[in-house]
Amino acid sequence: MMTAPVTASFDRMWADLGPVGRVGSGGYRRFAWTREDHTLREWFAGECAARRLDLVEDRMGNQWAWWWDGPGTVDDAVRQGNPGVAIGSHLDSVPDGGAYDGPLGVVSSLTVVDALRESGIRPDRPLAVVNFVDEEGARFGVACAGSRVITGAMTAERALGLTDHDGVSMADALVAAGRDPGAVGRDEEALRRVGAFVELHVEQGRALVDLGAPVAVASDIWPHGRWRFDFPGEANHAGTTRLEDRQDAMLGYADLVLGARRVAQTRGCVATVGKVAVTPGGVNAIPSQVTGWLDSRGADEGQVRATVEELRSRAGDFGATVTEESWTATTRFDEGLSNRLRTALGTDEELSVPVLGTGAGHDAGILATAGVPSAMLFVRNPTGVSHSPEEFAERDDCHAGVDALTTCVTDLVTS
Amino acid sequence: MMTAPVTASFDRMWADLGPVGRVGSGGYRRFAWTREDHTLREWFAGECAARRLDLVEDRMGNQWAWWWDGPGTVDDAVRQGNPGVAIGSHLDSVPDGGAYDGPLGVVSSLTVVDALRESGIRPDRPLAVVNFVDEEGARFGVACAGSRVITGAMTAERALGLTDHDGVSMADALVAAGRDPGAVGRDEEALRRVGAFVELHVEQGRALVDLGAPVAVASDIWPHGRWRFDFPGEANHAGTTRLEDRQDAMLGYADLVLGARRVAQTRGCVATVGKVAVTPGGVNAIPSQVTGWLDSRGADEGQVRATVEELRSRAGDFGATVTEESWTATTRFDEGLSNRLRTALGTDEELSVPVLGTGAGHDAGILATAGVPSAMLFVRNPTGVSHSPEEFAERDDCHAGVDALTTCVTDLVTS
Repeated sequence: MMTAPVTASFDRMWADLGPVGRVGSGGYRRFAWTREDHTLREWFAGECAARRLDLVEDRMGNQWAWWWDGPGTVDDAVRQGNPGVAIGSHLDSVPDGGAYDGPLGVVSSLTVVDALRESGIRPDRPLAVVNFVDEEGARFGVACAGSRVITGAMTAERALGLTDHDGVSMADALVAAGRDPGAVGRDEEALRRVGAFVELHVEQGRALVDLGAPVAVASDIWPHGRWRFDFPGEANHAGTTRLEDRQDAMLGYADLVLGARRVAQTRGCVATVGKVAVTPGGVNAIPSQVTGWLDSRGADEGQVRATVEELRSRAGDFGATVTEESWTATTRFDEGLSNRLRTALGTDEELSVPVLGTGAGHDAGILATAGVPSAMLFVRNPTGVSHSPEEFAERDDCHAGVDALTTCVTDLVTS
Repeated sequence: MMTAPVTASFDRMWADLGPVGRVGSGGYRRFAWTREDHTLREWFAGECAARRLDLVEDRMGNQWAWWWDGPGTVDDAVRQGNPGVAIGSHLDSVPDGGAYDGPLGVVSSLTVVDALRESGIRPDRPLAVVNFVDEEGARFGVACAGSRVITGAMTAERALGLTDHDGVSMADALVAAGRDPGAVGRDEEALRRVGAFVELHVEQGRALVDLGAPVAVASDIWPHGRWRFDFPGEANHAGTTRLEDRQDAMLGYADLVLGARRVAQTRGCVATVGKVAVTPGGVNAIPSQVTGWLDSRGADEGQVRATVEELRSRAGDFGATVTEESWTATTRFDEGLSNRLRTALGTDEELSVPVLGTGAGHDAGILATAGVPSAMLFVRNPTGVSHSPEEFAERDDCHAGVDALTTCVTDLVTS
């Protein structure tokens, strides 16, 4: 159990983050390389400095803060067959997202450092707390951009060419943030340091409340992807153009929205159209172009693929072009590592620890796919609401999450 | 027929306006009280000054440039039972609108002043060229805001409280433009000066090309309105929320889009959903609110009303609230004035002048409703495309429009 100073440390950091990027809805707008993101990155750097951790940025700007008191450098330890353990998550948010998705993992990980030090534990291998950049993809459209680039799952060229709602490319956003887009790319060196990665995350969906458990270990991430549907039309006056003369791009889009729900239902998947862009977007102008973004996921990869193909075919009747913006196959977390966490937790807490799959993508999934042994812990979300201002976890459950992560990390860094 | 200097004047002004607010699509973004609008207003003031017209702004910022060489002031003439004749249109645009909708009327009207002077005609009553502000409502959502406010069809309070896409109110936009929102309101004085208003406008829809005529006189404006549909939902994660647990606001919106087309078809109206706003608008977030704007019009007022009621009832099944943002009943232009224009044109040009109704709203319609004798001329649009970069009129037809307007104005100001 956490001591009072450790609990206080968690609570203070949690309170610190409360106002950053908070908007009228009560939710958060913390998008990659914006002012809010910079504030959060500075905050993270400050917390790491206060703990005398060595902060290193990789080639995409993910922040790794290393604790290594052993002989030589972190890279020396790795070369001697003793790679590090990394824990952490991300600080960015979806539009009007909740407070927990991402920050809970970062704050819990920083607190683990405090807890280890309180207990007098000195790691036998390097330990890092990591803040991944641009996990939500809220600004440039591709989720987990930070981990995708350093693992090579997304090329630097593609990442830098992504544009935000205002047409600003990621390359330009990096320049505006005082960074060198030329440095962006796969970063073997950063990855080589990581022998195991554990990401703690608020539960998304609602399972733990019924299981009566505050913490779970992840089994896998459902296959998931994003597709852009571009519907063509012809701009014209909404009052003077006969219905039979119209090419209204909005009609195909509406068909996609309703079709996505129906097809997903049939195929046992989920499918969502949560973002749309209309040109010209005037009340009295027939749309000349409507772009809708489809998000689809499911336990069965074949069914997700079939859902998208069915929708692509329907959209084709409206002349739409469909672009796959991202696709991630089923991700299984490292079985050895996950079992080790379950054992550590079971022994320590006398609890049976549930194992849950999830429909949400995570940096831990990207690292797992790239061959870094990765695992996740989920902290109970009593309503299951996520990506919303209503996202929530009880304070006691957050503390239980820190305890669980401390137990796991203690097991991983001392042996 | 126009003399060479008059033709050159039209062509020069037309060329002057070409670059202002032009965007990548080839269309225009000239929204009320933006930098582009200010440039256009300054340009208009300069053209009026060059013609020694007296520029007066009314209480909404509409620009009236008076030519009156008679005894006393314009107001003296009005008091002596000799009210003025106004001609003009607007310079703002819909998003990615065409070059002709609005500016053709303003440029033609300024050219008429040149033509009258070339012919040595000195008006027996005051003549004004007017540039109405915010005709398209592209920024604040209500069309013909300039004429609505000065006629009292929209209160100052409502106008000033309208907000744009970025949440800026019209009051704030006016302050930013160095104006006093406190001065905004109904302007009897400005209206009292106008005994007749004639607006020349590019044809919207496609009738004149088949009739083989370059110019028509308007009969009426269809009843038309705008309604805002707010669909409620619950923000949640697009990957982890079961379909049966969702309240996805986008579904009701999609039903509105498809329903609007179907119901309008049945009822012989037109209905369009050209603008949508989604909260939070993330690819991986279920929408918690979707707002769609419906534009509906038709020759028959009862059918338009019934279309909207049917859609309101459908939307109610999705929990939507529906707000009427504007409604304009059938507007009949002044029959005496319209007949006078037809007679003047018929005599002068040996042409049979067609009479056309239109589905588009105009400042001339607002003035007509307010009791100002008003009429319109339409200039042939060979494709009928409007509110689009493809909007077009042949140069010869534009010149024919100036000729027709000159003929009409000559008839109206000399008697």
